[in-house]
Amino acid sequence: MNKRNIKLTIAYDGYGYHGWQVQPNHKTIEGEIENALKKLTSQNIDISGASRTDAGVSALGQVANFHINSPVPTKNFPKALNQILPDEIVIKRAEEVDKKFSARFDVKHKQYQYKIFTGKDKPVIDIRHCWWKPDKFNIDAIQKASKLLIGEKDFKSFASAADEREDTVRNLTKCDIEIEGDWIYITVEGNGFLYNMVRNIVGTLIEFGKEKWSPEYIEQILQAKDRTKAGPIAPAQGLCLMWIKY
Amino acid sequence: MNKRNIKLTIAYDGYGYHGWQVQPNHKTIEGEIENALKKLTSQNIDISGASRTDAGVSALGQVANFHINSPVPTKNFPKALNQILPDEIVIKRAEEVDKKFSARFDVKHKQYQYKIFTGKDKPVIDIRHCWWKPDKFNIDAIQKASKLLIGEKDFKSFASAADEREDTVRNLTKCDIEIEGDWIYITVEGNGFLYNMVRNIVGTLIEFGKEKWSPEYIEQILQAKDRTKAGPIAPAQGLCLMWIKY
Repeated sequence: MNKRNIKLTIAYDGYGYHGWQVQPNHKTIEGEIENALKKLTSQNIDISGASRTDAGVSALGQVANFHINSPVPTKNFPKALNQILPDEIVIKRAEEVDKKFSARFDVKHKQYQYKIFTGKDKPVIDIRHCWWKPDKFNIDAIQKASKLLIGEKDFKSFASAADEREDTVRNLTKCDIEIEGDWIYITVEGNGFLYNMVRNIVGTLIEFGKEKWSPEYIEQILQAKDRTKAGPIAPAQGLCLMWIKY
Repeated sequence: MNKRNIKLTIAYDGYGYHGWQVQPNHKTIEGEIENALKKLTSQNIDISGASRTDAGVSALGQVANFHINSPVPTKNFPKALNQILPDEIVIKRAEEVDKKFSARFDVKHKQYQYKIFTGKDKPVIDIRHCWWKPDKFNIDAIQKASKLLIGEKDFKSFASAADEREDTVRNLTKCDIEIEGDWIYITVEGNGFLYNMVRNIVGTLIEFGKEKWSPEYIEQILQAKDRTKAGPIAPAQGLCLMWIKY
């Protein structure tokens, strides 16, 4: 059997979904795509996603791959699947890749963006895709603290206790804070992220914005390698997986 | 009875609602606000909105007013109503105004914005608040045609047949086209708008973008005073009422 290995680039509005990963009796992104593949090909296909995004997290550039032996030409998958998939999920691209390619294990670089709305009035149009924190923040303090996270560091203090991986060193190559009106955009890039790491970074940076700590204290949080030393987790719905490079 | 006249400034995500105006057996913005006022004050209150936005149209600055005799202080209305209202509706401001003020009839100036996404891939995060037209447009032609709409003109060709008002002259003071990546933003301002006028203007401008007509032809459309000479109506969900001035 000469199966093709197909790489999909996927965007989704994660609001209302129980995250990426298939779960019994729950609507998930992976589940919807596997159902659509089954309808299209009459085969049970396991897809493997690069990032197991949490319930409520969205993506503009999730990547997944699957192996298939089917008469459907690779270039036809996006259109055919998009006709079956719900409005919240779109297959942006399908490419045939090397048999050994793994969307999950071959990741070189990822970007996430987190959106915070600080205005007084509930942002009704964007409420499902941001963290609404109607407050004043010391942006300078957030920026200073964010810069101290950049580099190859042990991010254990920013990993969920549910992350059981022993190697908690990651290389954070970008941690940018942009302000646009009442919006704060936090953009992070790195070679990999621990479970809930971005949301824990955001929740912690916001504490610096409230001047709970001076910016340098973030180095003590890193050194502690203890989740309880960092700030609370930021809500899922502000987070979006922007792209993945291989 | 010395009733107060209260002016509300309201934002809402109109997706999933049957428009502003109360309709039996349908979820409407006005209906939700009247229900919330009833829960809060135990009174049946008629509110009067400045703009009867269609099903699917959103607003950042709708205005309404109502007369009430209640112990609730004016400044407490937003917080109290927002606790009752669904997530898609927010009262941004409440002010006591002159007894004669009418949100509907005293409008001096309004701004609407219409969003079009022209990218190839379905914009999953924004799909409920834009018109997805994956196509190439001649932006220069749209801009030229749009400028010819500015001024005090008879917009009968851009009014829905359902609009039975005899005076179809309106003063359009702005018709701006802005491009940002794959997005087209069309911003219009005027002293008043006929029923479906903004959506008909947008649907028509897009035809110029497809080079169906040369830009100057828009003057012939205006002169015809005939709805069938203009382009098709653009979908409701791309439209947002931005602000109203009195």
